[in-house]
Amino acid sequence: MNPYFTNRNTVRNFCKKDIDDNLIKEILEAAACAPTTGGMQLYSVIVTRDIVMKQRLAGAHFSQPTFVNAPVILTFCADFNRFTKWCRVSNADPGYDNIQSFVAAAFDATILAQQFCTIAEMEGLGTCYLGTTTYNPDMIADALDLPEYVVPVLSVALGYPEKSEMLYAQLPKDRLPVESFIFNEKYPDFSDDTIRGMYAEKESRLDNIKFTKENNKDSLAAVFTDVRYPRANNEIFSTKFVDFLRRQGFLHNNNQQP
Amino acid sequence: MNPYFTNRNTVRNFCKKDIDDNLIKEILEAAACAPTTGGMQLYSVIVTRDIVMKQRLAGAHFSQPTFVNAPVILTFCADFNRFTKWCRVSNADPGYDNIQSFVAAAFDATILAQQFCTIAEMEGLGTCYLGTTTYNPDMIADALDLPEYVVPVLSVALGYPEKSEMLYAQLPKDRLPVESFIFNEKYPDFSDDTIRGMYAEKESRLDNIKFTKENNKDSLAAVFTDVRYPRANNEIFSTKFVDFLRRQGFLHNNNQQP
Repeated sequence: MNPYFTNRNTVRNFCKKDIDDNLIKEILEAAACAPTTGGMQLYSVIVTRDIVMKQRLAGAHFSQPTFVNAPVILTFCADFNRFTKWCRVSNADPGYDNIQSFVAAAFDATILAQQFCTIAEMEGLGTCYLGTTTYNPDMIADALDLPEYVVPVLSVALGYPEKSEMLYAQLPKDRLPVESFIFNEKYPDFSDDTIRGMYAEKESRLDNIKFTKENNKDSLAAVFTDVRYPRANNEIFSTKFVDFLRRQGFLHNNNQQP
Repeated sequence: MNPYFTNRNTVRNFCKKDIDDNLIKEILEAAACAPTTGGMQLYSVIVTRDIVMKQRLAGAHFSQPTFVNAPVILTFCADFNRFTKWCRVSNADPGYDNIQSFVAAAFDATILAQQFCTIAEMEGLGTCYLGTTTYNPDMIADALDLPEYVVPVLSVALGYPEKSEMLYAQLPKDRLPVESFIFNEKYPDFSDDTIRGMYAEKESRLDNIKFTKENNKDSLAAVFTDVRYPRANNEIFSTKFVDFLRRQGFLHNNNQQP
């Protein structure tokens, strides 16, 4: 197995070196050979380089340092716009204004994004997903002129790594034992002790102990529930996201809605 | 660039050769080094080999031939169950019963699935996504005992390719020109002629002309709208999917719903 897969590192600091436009295109073209729902390619990618455009987009990503210092931002969108228009010019009747179609397009966009990151990293580029994309999809759509049936799902900060950044990991990655997420035949019922065992190594890592202390929390889990992904934020951003799906046309019929 | 990426082929016919359980585990462990939301690993994978279990799962996938002849089926699930339980045993208060949390977990599961397929194909295995997973998530959950906060999002049929199947493509892949899905700075407004141009090569492929004829349609687009992904199906499966998200606990609060 290519050692890249187990050693890869997310890169959050980029140097000034420019990325050739043709290289991005070439990688995306190769990534598009990954599977897509029914061969429909239900995605689009917006490349942000322009400084003014980057400033317009910054707020949506809370101006996080990785966003600010990346020379290129790629916004991967679930896209039924192009396909719907093709149906119309072909006198066919598209029926894709529903959540199932959004979900298929979101998978297509995610698969493309991940294949892009894999190839880009193998070519020596650094990548970092910005998890903020679905928090403020309306702001992103306004900045990038996204029309109906287009929803931004993942953004990737792209650049050549800073000297201090390692494309290959120096430490074992912070991952659960494989037995905690692969199950034979049926999903098991976990006892509390089984759960504690799954997270024991993660909790005992020095970097996570430090992280818990810095956040003044009693447990690593509490850093997630109280600081990183608290209920109040998840609920606000859930409401916003559903509103945005409706705005973009993916919740057209009331009978498909909760 | 590794030529694998542009030459890869989806495989739908598998030979009888068994797949070593440790190989699957090893590939999944490597795939899990791909990025995940906040390092949370919001996914699980259920491995189906047992003939009785496969029969219980078959209906959910409409007993399609690729499902039936694959020695192994992997069901990739968006999973906030394990993480929520970890929060509870840590006396932290999880707030993940909402659509934003489901979306994050669905991205994690999709990224894992795609990284798994890439590594598996590089190791000589054949893979095929089953797009039927989100159509009948309730049937899949019943067969696999999926608890609350676990939603199957993608399934992969896995096996060594039949002799007749090519791991590497013999023909150029059926993909749109890269200019139709990568845009600089802003999403453009397409004229009808631009749309026709984007799909011209696809429509003129002999395999697609044959496919259109076999389905007795006037256009390739009509095969999609009338046969493969018709509105009535999309709407039925949208209603089912939203109902299932509620059943699994991801639409807990009414104010986050459309």
